[in-house]
Amino acid sequence: MSSRAEMELAVKVQGEKVRSLKEQKADAAQIEDEVAKLLQLKAQLGTDDGKSKFILKTPKGTRDYNPKQTAIREKVFNIIINCFKRHGAETIDTPVFELKETLTGKYGEDSKLIYDLKDQGGELLSLRYDLTVPFARYLAMNKIKAIKRYHIAKVYRRDNPAMTKGRYREFYQCDFDIAGEYDPMLPDAECLRIIYEILGELQIGEFLIKVNDRRILDGMFAVCGVPDEKFRAICSSVDKLDKTPWEDVKMEMVGEKGLAPETADLIGQYVQLNGGIEFIDRLQNDPLLSQNKVAVEALGDMKLLFEYLTLLGATDKINFDLSLARGLDYYTGMICEAVLLQNPNEIQPQQKDQSEESVGVGSVAGGGRYDGLVGMFDPKGRKVPCVGVSIGIERIFSIMEQKAENSAEKIRTTETQVLVASAQKKLLNERMKLVTELWNSGIKAELIYRKNPKLLNQLQYCEENGIPLVAIIGEQELKDGVVKLRVVATREEVDIPRGSLVEEIKKRTNHS
Amino acid sequence: MSSRAEMELAVKVQGEKVRSLKEQKADAAQIEDEVAKLLQLKAQLGTDDGKSKFILKTPKGTRDYNPKQTAIREKVFNIIINCFKRHGAETIDTPVFELKETLTGKYGEDSKLIYDLKDQGGELLSLRYDLTVPFARYLAMNKIKAIKRYHIAKVYRRDNPAMTKGRYREFYQCDFDIAGEYDPMLPDAECLRIIYEILGELQIGEFLIKVNDRRILDGMFAVCGVPDEKFRAICSSVDKLDKTPWEDVKMEMVGEKGLAPETADLIGQYVQLNGGIEFIDRLQNDPLLSQNKVAVEALGDMKLLFEYLTLLGATDKINFDLSLARGLDYYTGMICEAVLLQNPNEIQPQQKDQSEESVGVGSVAGGGRYDGLVGMFDPKGRKVPCVGVSIGIERIFSIMEQKAENSAEKIRTTETQVLVASAQKKLLNERMKLVTELWNSGIKAELIYRKNPKLLNQLQYCEENGIPLVAIIGEQELKDGVVKLRVVATREEVDIPRGSLVEEIKKRTNHS
Repeated sequence: MSSRAEMELAVKVQGEKVRSLKEQKADAAQIEDEVAKLLQLKAQLGTDDGKSKFILKTPKGTRDYNPKQTAIREKVFNIIINCFKRHGAETIDTPVFELKETLTGKYGEDSKLIYDLKDQGGELLSLRYDLTVPFARYLAMNKIKAIKRYHIAKVYRRDNPAMTKGRYREFYQCDFDIAGEYDPMLPDAECLRIIYEILGELQIGEFLIKVNDRRILDGMFAVCGVPDEKFRAICSSVDKLDKTPWEDVKMEMVGEKGLAPETADLIGQYVQLNGGIEFIDRLQNDPLLSQNKVAVEALGDMKLLFEYLTLLGATDKINFDLSLARGLDYYTGMICEAVLLQNPNEIQPQQKDQSEESVGVGSVAGGGRYDGLVGMFDPKGRKVPCVGVSIGIERIFSIMEQKAENSAEKIRTTETQVLVASAQKKLLNERMKLVTELWNSGIKAELIYRKNPKLLNQLQYCEENGIPLVAIIGEQELKDGVVKLRVVATREEVDIPRGSLVEEIKKRTNHS
Repeated sequence: MSSRAEMELAVKVQGEKVRSLKEQKADAAQIEDEVAKLLQLKAQLGTDDGKSKFILKTPKGTRDYNPKQTAIREKVFNIIINCFKRHGAETIDTPVFELKETLTGKYGEDSKLIYDLKDQGGELLSLRYDLTVPFARYLAMNKIKAIKRYHIAKVYRRDNPAMTKGRYREFYQCDFDIAGEYDPMLPDAECLRIIYEILGELQIGEFLIKVNDRRILDGMFAVCGVPDEKFRAICSSVDKLDKTPWEDVKMEMVGEKGLAPETADLIGQYVQLNGGIEFIDRLQNDPLLSQNKVAVEALGDMKLLFEYLTLLGATDKINFDLSLARGLDYYTGMICEAVLLQNPNEIQPQQKDQSEESVGVGSVAGGGRYDGLVGMFDPKGRKVPCVGVSIGIERIFSIMEQKAENSAEKIRTTETQVLVASAQKKLLNERMKLVTELWNSGIKAELIYRKNPKLLNQLQYCEENGIPLVAIIGEQELKDGVVKLRVVATREEVDIPRGSLVEEIKKRTNHS
């Protein structure tokens, strides 16, 4: 971008009135995007030597996973999928893009972050923004009244990426949802228990699951004197309290969103409170909040939820927190969000000062109840109550990767049990015959793609790739009907009758 | 679309000169697309009752996978991934979209089928068309000289969908590739062996793997008198021989592509030939083909390949076929394609007449050598030789689904081992405590989300979902410190001490 264009853009940005943090961030992202495109175009125009230059990269905000990263990813997915299956979930899959109108009106002000496809003739399409809206569309389309399903897939958001913090434009979501008419708070409790199990099993450090209810938030806004039409806007201000001090949030409420300062102060008294079951009791006796029928009902449900969570053994990590708001439009009841209190890879000496140190370390899961979403898709508006949680896996990957790097243990990226090798020349045919025998018996085996590889190179290949065994053949072994089996770690070698080789390899590698 | 617009389009289409089948198909797809969009717009404009109507569907050429389909998919993927791992492959992952220019110039005339993203500011992006070009980009970007990797992911093509035949616009590819400088034909042979293993294990009926070499095709074109600049066009005509009789292909070569009839006839004599190692010998002695140095070299390699395939025990399903061309631009050496000779779900009485009946039943795998692709991305043009195969999974899914439907066996979509149930009222709390105990011990367990469900309903839930066991608690069981374990299939019931329940469930379900 020319410095003149940059200046104009800067002036334009500065000249505008004070706007929300989100809008400012979106602008910053837009500027960066424009600069990136201009650089790309410039590169294509060619350099001084007349050769056009190609930028070798993945799109902004995306990344490749190398074999080590996919190996870690597989471990994380296995823990998560195991948990989902332990709770009786099936899985479904939906296309990466939806009709544009399927996504319209579901995400509030975040809708501008949706990726659209180019109009190349045919339907107008957008990349999915989450897995929840496609799930609701799936339920309505197939007239499904009850299902417990998980879905692990990538979603797409044209957000300002912060890749070191695990924030990408293409990222995985791991969703678990329960749809159906059931007795109150039972599916909600199980969803929270699932976050509790998964974050515990992943061993990524201390965490806290914050819980609230949209109806309590709305009731609180009502009794504090927020006008109806400002509920969503004020809600999105409250949502910033995890990263922004109350004073700044109040300023936004009063300055930008035109709330009366007394109303903001009243809200402030509530949203800075949190606690367990005793806190629910306190709120149930709060004279102001008791005036609101919906809030009273929701507090009753919250009480029930915490009783269930006690039975499910999960209350030690779950906190009822009035500052939790969640940005998405479609939530109607319970909402939740899990945060890590500490990155286990970072050494933080003054860990005790939780309120300061643990703020913004990062949300790793979230969800809630959305009883109206399926009805938005059903031609007759029939509702299917739903509640679900989503594990935000990218941040967890980053932590696991860091953990793996810090540890001495080497991560294997293949599962090869044995390399078929030879010390002598002209034995390629024999190596091929042996490796075929092993493949036919289900052994994971490789050979070096050389006619006459050196034994040293073959052993080195095993070292590099963590292959535990080498099956060595030479003229003598062929004559004797044996194979020399070498244990790479100990260098121990033993002759095994060819007929027993498969069994021997299985015996020696069945731990893997 | 108005009938006037339709007419104009029709006139336009008819008025044009004879064009290739592919172009005509693309036009048909375009017209369908336009009609779909207009219908969508019309629906949005509203119906007579003034309510705007929403079309509840997935985008054209895409589909959801329901739980049964994902269960089948998981089985198929497991077979494929197991095979890839048996051959020592690691896995990588790349973003679903690439910079537009990454895909430019890699797919020849198929490039028009690429999905572009809308320009919303920032880089110009396209959805990946296959996994090979992203792989080459990955190698060049990370300066990787040797890797054996698999990649299973969805790719996107704006093709004319034929969903009953398993042809979608969003579909899975399962790719296995070997990159690196090795001795000739060794990685190529292993790639073919992998197709051989996978198609065998999937048990989807008889198949044939056709093999050819781009250099033999080019050499054949040269000695037959095809001008250099027409190689690719004639190649794409030859590619149609699997679905189109020779006479029509010849007409296209002569009529549309301006080839001399004698040249076409010469080509016809070659491309209608195929066979095993003896056929290679015959071609090596062919006086015309022997004049071409590159073809002679490639025939030598083909001979070596078949010798290796004999050692790998795979020649019974592999055929050297001069009519195999493969459309993609980037192939430089060996090319291959696997076809099913019969859909195992279709009863075809005159199966023996292979040449007629088996034509076009469907390609389920393909691949080849592409030694130049990585070099197209490397700033200094450094080449990394590559060879790979791709399993076309969608058709295989369709066959497996059909097979499952025809079979009596019910497919389970969950893995739940036990339902925690109660015959009496007011035992929700006890059910929740017990299911928590089971989850804590890694048992896959569910309960019904009702305060007081009927036992009959709970047993019915087990029947419907194939849950093998029910753990029933009542006042008496709680007093006696036991749980009544019921086997759903046999209705057998036995009291188990609570402390032994986990062990007992594991014992009774460890086959699953």
